[in-house]
Amino acid sequence: MQPHRISILGVGLLGGSIGLAVHERIKGCTVVGYGHKRATLDAALQSGAIDEGYDDLSRAVRGADLVILCTPVGLFRGLLGELGPLLAPGTLVTDVGSTKRSIVEAAGELLPAGVQFIGSHPMAGSEKRGVQFARGDLYDGALCILTPTPDTDEGALEKVRWFWELLGMRICRVSPEEHDRRLADVSHLPHALAAALVMVQEEASIDLAGKGFQDMTRIAAGDGGLWRDILLDNRDNVRASIRAMRGRLDELDALLGAGDSQAVKAWLEDAAGRRQRLAERMRTTSE
Amino acid sequence: MQPHRISILGVGLLGGSIGLAVHERIKGCTVVGYGHKRATLDAALQSGAIDEGYDDLSRAVRGADLVILCTPVGLFRGLLGELGPLLAPGTLVTDVGSTKRSIVEAAGELLPAGVQFIGSHPMAGSEKRGVQFARGDLYDGALCILTPTPDTDEGALEKVRWFWELLGMRICRVSPEEHDRRLADVSHLPHALAAALVMVQEEASIDLAGKGFQDMTRIAAGDGGLWRDILLDNRDNVRASIRAMRGRLDELDALLGAGDSQAVKAWLEDAAGRRQRLAERMRTTSE
Repeated sequence: MQPHRISILGVGLLGGSIGLAVHERIKGCTVVGYGHKRATLDAALQSGAIDEGYDDLSRAVRGADLVILCTPVGLFRGLLGELGPLLAPGTLVTDVGSTKRSIVEAAGELLPAGVQFIGSHPMAGSEKRGVQFARGDLYDGALCILTPTPDTDEGALEKVRWFWELLGMRICRVSPEEHDRRLADVSHLPHALAAALVMVQEEASIDLAGKGFQDMTRIAAGDGGLWRDILLDNRDNVRASIRAMRGRLDELDALLGAGDSQAVKAWLEDAAGRRQRLAERMRTTSE
Repeated sequence: MQPHRISILGVGLLGGSIGLAVHERIKGCTVVGYGHKRATLDAALQSGAIDEGYDDLSRAVRGADLVILCTPVGLFRGLLGELGPLLAPGTLVTDVGSTKRSIVEAAGELLPAGVQFIGSHPMAGSEKRGVQFARGDLYDGALCILTPTPDTDEGALEKVRWFWELLGMRICRVSPEEHDRRLADVSHLPHALAAALVMVQEEASIDLAGKGFQDMTRIAAGDGGLWRDILLDNRDNVRASIRAMRGRLDELDALLGAGDSQAVKAWLEDAAGRRQRLAERMRTTSE
């Protein structure tokens, strides 16, 4: 199971944290970083996240038994196209992207037979960005969603599962289509809402904001480029989620307009009841 | 400045926490609780939040130099109507309500000359409810918004300011109108969004939710009755906030529909920049 040489394409918060975790948890495994900026590679080398760093893709993946795509989602297709001719049969490829349909499809198209691709979405990270925020325990206890298809090799799937579990992750499996649909609701829509909520504020209102507002808008500080890629890549689902949200807000708006006290209360209690059940279901320590 | 007998009307999380804080911080002050449910009064007595508890309003406010309305917002007008004939000149009245126009107006109408009313909105609390969650440090470090009008007695205002500062609160002053308009944006709209966001989820999606989703929806677990009162009382502003929010979401929806990568990025970066500036402005320890 154990990889001997892991190649991390894109050494930011997520890629750097994988490197640190691998060094803590897999003995004798070399971690290679790939990126365009020498300064980033140097920072990753210095922090101990990677053992070697290259701005040449061919050198970065040579001899790797596991390649992990950690760039923004929008670069995945181009990267897979370049990787295709470079990878030896038996190489395992996975990723950390927040959308899954497009990369699974591109991998099927662009990677040669004998190179196995497994779509992964480790649900870890923060609104921070860059290898300087990388942490060896970033993935510990978080959920990793694997998105096999009917064509997926079970042995390759097991290896990727083993890898994320070694980093402390809980695993679940859904199809790429289901992943993208559900993530639009639980992740991409919330990001859009947080951003829009910040934008409707007048500056002076912020001084009157409490902890609830801070909690609701924290994710809006996330990187615009990363999120642009995610929202565009998953835009059919995200637009459907936005429309569903509008439907609910219109409902409340109408109830308030009618001054329907009982119905407003029922609307709020429906939400509160669901949130309480979710809290039990999520069983988090922070709740 | 120091009150000798404080009457707390409604002994829940907020009222009970005032009682505990007063006992910690003002020596020799008697705290009287008023409520309909004997069990709640008994719990408040046992926890040390109040020294005496009555289900009779007349007895509860007799001899009080400070009366604090801590019931849901929807009960304020009725309570002020009952209080009018009961209060001696010189009594100071304030509240902890999340809306301010209606109570300030009702107090002006229903309280006799010589009884001073100051609208207060201490921005503390949680999605929990009930005196069993009361804490003596609930108000410590949080913001209290005072909403004087041109008719407000400055001496009374100073006393109320002194009181909340003694409980550890930071103070700011805005008009009741400005309060309700700004709070619709930074508090009431976020609550509506959190509730709607929970409601658009399918159950199975929840298992894929991360910390961002939990943070964004936590406040939706709040009490339906309390929030019904707030949203209805402030419905003109809340509806305007919902419309502004819809406008922003429609904007994003259109940009995604057009696949306008640059504009989507600019939209997200605008929000991220604002959120980062807010974080500096809020200068909270939790950020």
